[in-house]
Amino acid sequence: MAKVRCQISISLDGFVAGPGQSIDNPLGEGGMQLHEWAFELAAWRDPHGEKGGEVNASTPVVEEALDNVGASVMGRNMFGGGPGPWSAEPWNGWWGDEPPFHTPVFVLTHHQREPLELEGGNVFHFVTDGVERAVELALEAAAGTDVSIGGGGETVQQCIATGLLDELQLHLVPVLLHDGVRLFENLPRGTELELTRVVDAPGVTHLDYRLGD
Amino acid sequence: MAKVRCQISISLDGFVAGPGQSIDNPLGEGGMQLHEWAFELAAWRDPHGEKGGEVNASTPVVEEALDNVGASVMGRNMFGGGPGPWSAEPWNGWWGDEPPFHTPVFVLTHHQREPLELEGGNVFHFVTDGVERAVELALEAAAGTDVSIGGGGETVQQCIATGLLDELQLHLVPVLLHDGVRLFENLPRGTELELTRVVDAPGVTHLDYRLGD
Repeated sequence: MAKVRCQISISLDGFVAGPGQSIDNPLGEGGMQLHEWAFELAAWRDPHGEKGGEVNASTPVVEEALDNVGASVMGRNMFGGGPGPWSAEPWNGWWGDEPPFHTPVFVLTHHQREPLELEGGNVFHFVTDGVERAVELALEAAAGTDVSIGGGGETVQQCIATGLLDELQLHLVPVLLHDGVRLFENLPRGTELELTRVVDAPGVTHLDYRLGD
Repeated sequence: MAKVRCQISISLDGFVAGPGQSIDNPLGEGGMQLHEWAFELAAWRDPHGEKGGEVNASTPVVEEALDNVGASVMGRNMFGGGPGPWSAEPWNGWWGDEPPFHTPVFVLTHHQREPLELEGGNVFHFVTDGVERAVELALEAAAGTDVSIGGGGETVQQCIATGLLDELQLHLVPVLLHDGVRLFENLPRGTELELTRVVDAPGVTHLDYRLGD
């Protein structure tokens, strides 16, 4: 059965982005450190159009995260932020001409916009009626395969809080960001997580959780 | 060389105690969940004077945590809280007639008090001139063996912030407490941690860190 999954890097002090996020610094101060474990991996570089790279204990984790995903959901900031309404600034996001998703991507926003089709099977749909509708559309588009919740933190929180998320994979990185966007905040009491797997890899610990019903 | 070590249970959302800590509820609301992984272990029950119990992947971790420890340091609340100055309420703490430490224990407090000797080699010394002095006294008492920082969260923070702590072992428990005492707070920028070991065990993931110089 199709699952709604999220995999996200998190600091030891619980932040998925640093403080001071902006259009020039989308990961916030220090936030890039959360992703360094991935950048050297062949399994990460290949879908991002880069050659070479390492193979280590993170490799199967990254491959699984990309496998069987038929659609994605992300918040507006993860798509590309931007200070104004889309009509005033109809840019194409952070991700370049060929984003690494290769699926339909449903972007949560308050501003209506026509779908944006980029290379490599990346079609961005802009959803203005909330996260539940975005996940519903993504599940339809995924047609029996899984939906990946891309981020950011607030979008993942909403998916946990509304019971939409089935599986959460944390990439726990041994750095402190001290401030920024927390993942585990604004969640209802009684939210239950079951740890299903631990993978110890260079620079990161991968922790898989199943969310309670 | 003697090390200053701490092992502490922490929720997935970063709390080492729940909200509403009081003399009647020292772990705070929900805080007991952080320790359930340990209670069934023979390795935990034996030093606490209880018979029986399980052996699992946590067993060597618990044994190591108790091994080669010659003295302990803890905050006043972990010793036993209490609403007033010691002279008004000279009680003997939470830990009963024979506490599980079996070492000298240096308790951080603002109230001078004579040492308290209980059974089983537990001698509580009350230190009024700060955490650095308490750790110094504990290292002297440990005479070449290690010092264990027992907690609570604020005491561990102080030991990290002042560079006193050499090794931190987190027992990461897949529960959310939503509120309470955070471990990773009030720490200086530049605090560095190196992950040295991961142990996956029932109900808990043990994460060992070496603190930077």
